[in-house]
Amino acid sequence: MTNHPAAAFDRDAGRLAVGGVPVDRLADRVGGTPFFAYDRGLLTGRVQLLRAALPDEVQLSYAVKANPMPAVVQHLAGLVDSFDVASALEMRTALDTPMPPHRVSFAGPGKTDAELRQAIAAGVTIEMESENEADRVAVLGRQLGLRPRVAVRVNPDFAVKGSGMRLGGGPQQFGVDSEQVPALLKELANADVEFLGFHVFAGSQNLRADSLCEAQRRTVDLAIQLAEESPLPVRYLNLGGGFGIPYTDRDEPLDLEAIGANLADLARGPIRQGLPEARVVIELGRYIVGECGVYVTRVVDRKVSRGRTYLVVDGGLHHQLAASGNFGQVIRRNYPIAVAERIDAEPAETVTVVGCLCTPLDLLGDAVTLPRADVGDLIVLFQAGAYGLTASPTAFLSHPAPAEVLV
Amino acid sequence: MTNHPAAAFDRDAGRLAVGGVPVDRLADRVGGTPFFAYDRGLLTGRVQLLRAALPDEVQLSYAVKANPMPAVVQHLAGLVDSFDVASALEMRTALDTPMPPHRVSFAGPGKTDAELRQAIAAGVTIEMESENEADRVAVLGRQLGLRPRVAVRVNPDFAVKGSGMRLGGGPQQFGVDSEQVPALLKELANADVEFLGFHVFAGSQNLRADSLCEAQRRTVDLAIQLAEESPLPVRYLNLGGGFGIPYTDRDEPLDLEAIGANLADLARGPIRQGLPEARVVIELGRYIVGECGVYVTRVVDRKVSRGRTYLVVDGGLHHQLAASGNFGQVIRRNYPIAVAERIDAEPAETVTVVGCLCTPLDLLGDAVTLPRADVGDLIVLFQAGAYGLTASPTAFLSHPAPAEVLV
Repeated sequence: MTNHPAAAFDRDAGRLAVGGVPVDRLADRVGGTPFFAYDRGLLTGRVQLLRAALPDEVQLSYAVKANPMPAVVQHLAGLVDSFDVASALEMRTALDTPMPPHRVSFAGPGKTDAELRQAIAAGVTIEMESENEADRVAVLGRQLGLRPRVAVRVNPDFAVKGSGMRLGGGPQQFGVDSEQVPALLKELANADVEFLGFHVFAGSQNLRADSLCEAQRRTVDLAIQLAEESPLPVRYLNLGGGFGIPYTDRDEPLDLEAIGANLADLARGPIRQGLPEARVVIELGRYIVGECGVYVTRVVDRKVSRGRTYLVVDGGLHHQLAASGNFGQVIRRNYPIAVAERIDAEPAETVTVVGCLCTPLDLLGDAVTLPRADVGDLIVLFQAGAYGLTASPTAFLSHPAPAEVLV
Repeated sequence: MTNHPAAAFDRDAGRLAVGGVPVDRLADRVGGTPFFAYDRGLLTGRVQLLRAALPDEVQLSYAVKANPMPAVVQHLAGLVDSFDVASALEMRTALDTPMPPHRVSFAGPGKTDAELRQAIAAGVTIEMESENEADRVAVLGRQLGLRPRVAVRVNPDFAVKGSGMRLGGGPQQFGVDSEQVPALLKELANADVEFLGFHVFAGSQNLRADSLCEAQRRTVDLAIQLAEESPLPVRYLNLGGGFGIPYTDRDEPLDLEAIGANLADLARGPIRQGLPEARVVIELGRYIVGECGVYVTRVVDRKVSRGRTYLVVDGGLHHQLAASGNFGQVIRRNYPIAVAERIDAEPAETVTVVGCLCTPLDLLGDAVTLPRADVGDLIVLFQAGAYGLTASPTAFLSHPAPAEVLV
């Protein structure tokens, strides 16, 4: 089980532990199952891994959307250089930490006037997604008597191969088309805003280091080219992120060393020369938190139907939609799954693990091999630290919300 | 626009109205967009349509999971014969209406002891999904000093063609395999429970009347066969539902008359003869509420990116996941969409309607033809009355929850 994500977690007498506490004890501590548990030490270790691989010239931003649990965001405030937020509530969560407002950026294609007003009042950096948004920011800044801090999100003229989701290249709802950016910069030079630089985010959940490196090179080239046409100095460059994590046994972990070497070359070569004043940022969400969390459920029923053994657990897709294969996936594949009390035991049988919802979509493990599990045992899903609870339809069938703990 | 679901709603000076109130006024009434609005008159009309088509011998149950908004459930309490619930909270919502507890049934494959205890205490009918659950119900009933009201959910030995989701036939997490039911009935005859009958639910979102009719015939055959082997009289038969509604322009509405005729034949033939004491129930959720609701959003940005026009609205998949094609669908197709203020105007352009989330999954209308819409206009998604808000990841990116109104 060395490549299994369970290998990163502690053990206690054969049981899976999070933050040193066995998950069965955690279940009692939080008052029951199902729940999410995030490992503080793994979070810290993940940032250290990134710091070791990335050059000192590149800063690290945490995309709060991946896991906005306040305790997680508080913990990461002491570890990363900045936060990126996608809504007013995420912004409030970020501002409740010691992170200074000027190290918080706010991106998203549909920001309302109310959200922009909050962002301007807070003094965070608004990553503007369109000319219309730029106009509104300027108007709202005047109304508030404040000079908005802004960057321009650029929709590049290239796409990244291998992304789980593509957010750049061709027509997009995200950002300003790169060929339209020079005209916008001229307008910004005359507007009462504090222009900082660019944000380019080409895709997410990418496991191919070569594709990510190419995207970073092309992003730097594009930013330098735009800077040359800019009447304003570029002091900020958000290269995006998109670093993927392995969810299924077909996924290979990302080659972080290769990405770090590429970023070092870029930082010490073209960026130093072409964007000497720019604070360069890699923005990561899933890659920081995804592998640090588990979703813990309890077996409520064990039944055999026409030769197939089912474990019915008290959780389901209402808490961990992606694990059911129903959130952006084309083909459903099993996420890593284990029996918490016998975490390193050999598999003893093939079972189908389903959630408690009255729908066949609620499939958490399709014909998985596990040690024997009975009613009352704990079934754990891994890779649940990012886009788990908040990316799931928690009110579906009106079950209680699960607890979240950072241990 | 006669086949468009908008045709069922009122108009007010060219604007879409729900319950007679134009949606722009509703937006002010609820304090902003986005929101869901359900039409009380359409709900009543939908039940009347069903009553007219179905024989008097068949009762109508509302599956609360489709839309558990308390006001909707209260309204339907006066119109349908019974409720089906899938969780303790849905049960509480149902019991807060005038519906008597013995007309509430509770189904679901992963009921916890806590939920079963609540159901027994309430006196609702527990639709038991396994032998294990039957054992637990008996134990909990003894502990509570109450005689649980139970039915057996049967996993039939046939499947229904054409269902959007299959819930019966072959191995299933749902119900007791039909060939195992006689043995369970013998046990129940000796247990301190009140056995009522059977629940068979073979599939959902089916638009093929012939398939549904066949399923109903085979379900009745199966129930009669099981009743013959039963030491106990069968006083309840829940035939399930599965009636689909058209979501895309490729879907044809269900032929309700054909289903009504089939049910009349069954009620007056085999059921009268083989199950003379049985209360026969059709359980519907989506078919009752799905077409009676709209999801209303406002255009926040209008932008052209490399030749494609985008309308960015202040809602998105966090409220109406199914419309983005990310909940159970294999192929994404557009749900019906319109500009509220120009509901009957001719289309003027092809646009892509996206939500406000920072993900390319947040696509609500892909290259749809609409009258011209600008920032501030209201974009309405239809067929939003069922599995909308509660089947969506509302906390995704931490935007505020939308309002719901029954008008």
